[in-house]
Amino acid sequence: MPELRKDPIIGRWVIISTERGKRPSEFIVSAPPAKGGLCPFCPGNEKMTPGEICAYRANDDKPNTPGWHIRVVPNKYPALRIEGELGRAGEGVYDKMNGIGAHEVIIESPNHADMLSTISAKQFEEVLWAWRDRIMDLKKDSRLRYTLVFKNHGEAAGASLEHTHSQLIALPIIPKRVGEELDGTLEYYNYKERCVFCDIIRQEIMQGVRVVTENRDFLAMTPYAPKAPFEIWILPKFHESHFENSQKHHYENLASLFSDVLKRIDKVLNSPPYNFILHTAPIRNGNALPHYHWHFEIMPKLTKTAGFEWGSGFYINPTPPEEAATFLREAKIP
Amino acid sequence: MPELRKDPIIGRWVIISTERGKRPSEFIVSAPPAKGGLCPFCPGNEKMTPGEICAYRANDDKPNTPGWHIRVVPNKYPALRIEGELGRAGEGVYDKMNGIGAHEVIIESPNHADMLSTISAKQFEEVLWAWRDRIMDLKKDSRLRYTLVFKNHGEAAGASLEHTHSQLIALPIIPKRVGEELDGTLEYYNYKERCVFCDIIRQEIMQGVRVVTENRDFLAMTPYAPKAPFEIWILPKFHESHFENSQKHHYENLASLFSDVLKRIDKVLNSPPYNFILHTAPIRNGNALPHYHWHFEIMPKLTKTAGFEWGSGFYINPTPPEEAATFLREAKIP
Repeated sequence: MPELRKDPIIGRWVIISTERGKRPSEFIVSAPPAKGGLCPFCPGNEKMTPGEICAYRANDDKPNTPGWHIRVVPNKYPALRIEGELGRAGEGVYDKMNGIGAHEVIIESPNHADMLSTISAKQFEEVLWAWRDRIMDLKKDSRLRYTLVFKNHGEAAGASLEHTHSQLIALPIIPKRVGEELDGTLEYYNYKERCVFCDIIRQEIMQGVRVVTENRDFLAMTPYAPKAPFEIWILPKFHESHFENSQKHHYENLASLFSDVLKRIDKVLNSPPYNFILHTAPIRNGNALPHYHWHFEIMPKLTKTAGFEWGSGFYINPTPPEEAATFLREAKIP
Repeated sequence: MPELRKDPIIGRWVIISTERGKRPSEFIVSAPPAKGGLCPFCPGNEKMTPGEICAYRANDDKPNTPGWHIRVVPNKYPALRIEGELGRAGEGVYDKMNGIGAHEVIIESPNHADMLSTISAKQFEEVLWAWRDRIMDLKKDSRLRYTLVFKNHGEAAGASLEHTHSQLIALPIIPKRVGEELDGTLEYYNYKERCVFCDIIRQEIMQGVRVVTENRDFLAMTPYAPKAPFEIWILPKFHESHFENSQKHHYENLASLFSDVLKRIDKVLNSPPYNFILHTAPIRNGNALPHYHWHFEIMPKLTKTAGFEWGSGFYINPTPPEEAATFLREAKIP
């Protein structure tokens, strides 16, 4: 059973995934990814993954057979397990609990050669629905407090399989960064009685210098104080705290804008590895927070290292976001 | 002039080093480090760096000539500048200030082939004194609030030059992570009237399972909730909030223990790249805080990526710290 442990100084929870138990030699040998010729995410190889949680299919094919266009499966090497009790406990000055949660993989296309930036806007919309459906389902589990949706694209960004996929980790705790956002936005709201993200969106659209692209419902921009070069946020222009509460036309508009942004990143930065994370309100925080505003944060992985920044929380960014936005905004994409 | 910008959501300050202004193509081309044959940190090449801030020499050689065993110079490409006014200003919803500060390089040995793990304990002690002397000097500047001492070792950890060196960045703000540590330790102190680090040290020495090595004054241990495999902390066993207040015999004991720990890392993990950071109390926070306890955090760079962890504050660690400590503790070093 993996263990959740709390740092007693700053209160951050960490998963110690004891079942993986990497030994020193496993870090030393930089083994190339296994190339057996068979991709476990390709149609026909459904048996290579744990049984599917859900799949979108054009017809009524049986589960775990080809014919799907989106498929969600449990992670074969999960960081958390869905079975068991939370079991909070102390250990002297320390706090821990069992690593209860879910770790799922969303296979975003049946075609091995596809990338999220090249699939159709229609297929992208299906990916958004898959994230939403999984969040709605996991919300029912009262042990869970947060669903973290993210994507690692490219080996240098942590993807261990090439076939395009994203991941969802459902947690019994709220990730530290999200907790900080909730605190910070609440403080702003208590003072101004406005959502800080709504204020940012108004100012960014007015100034224009950090806008990458926009449509009726969504804005893509480089943030004012980005921690890394070419960091991009995608935000709904309307106020909404929970991603899963959006309406159908919102997902349509998000799919086309998100796809557009990924194409711009590919064009300007030569298809770099990247990570993105959905920042949304905790699943137990009701259905509407006046101070929080869901959004995506995209980080192209351009510098080799996170170096000392990782341990100090202090960042040096060599590219002003206004310059990054100009390159992205002016990119000619198909 | 570089600019300090504040994230309006979570309050983190970021340096936007406009003078470097990296363009997209500079990220795409992974240029190999320039090999001109001449190392700017080697004796005889003193003219290749900005004029030295200080140097430790056996005799009364002139500045910027060979004969030194430790040399401190300004960073040739500083992230911050020492000249100017802080100039705080708003920009709508955003806050910024001028990038005032210092960025210095501590050359830890005149010998190009040396590593911090292989220099003598005596030479290591000189490095500690250099850090201390620079902190004491920068404390006099009332615009500055924090001195961040760190080392990037190895290209993958962000070192751009091979010749062994560490860096010091003096800031007009307190790095976010340090601020969190100050808040967290104060909360614990207000509740328990004890320093949480002192409690941790007592428990770790009693349990022993996460101890790497110790001597009279210092303890090296793997933390209970490490964010990365083989993360190591070095802490003074005595309570002290400010690194620069330590006494001579403390630095002697720290030098021998720190050297021992780096040798163990080299042995167990095959001389990996690593980062370490000195966590010490802010320079304007008086001379003694009852709740804070200075220490070093060392992070070997073993996994290729920081991936989604970087943006969520949520970490998955595949190596339990008890296992890491066992490997390090049992390593046979010269």
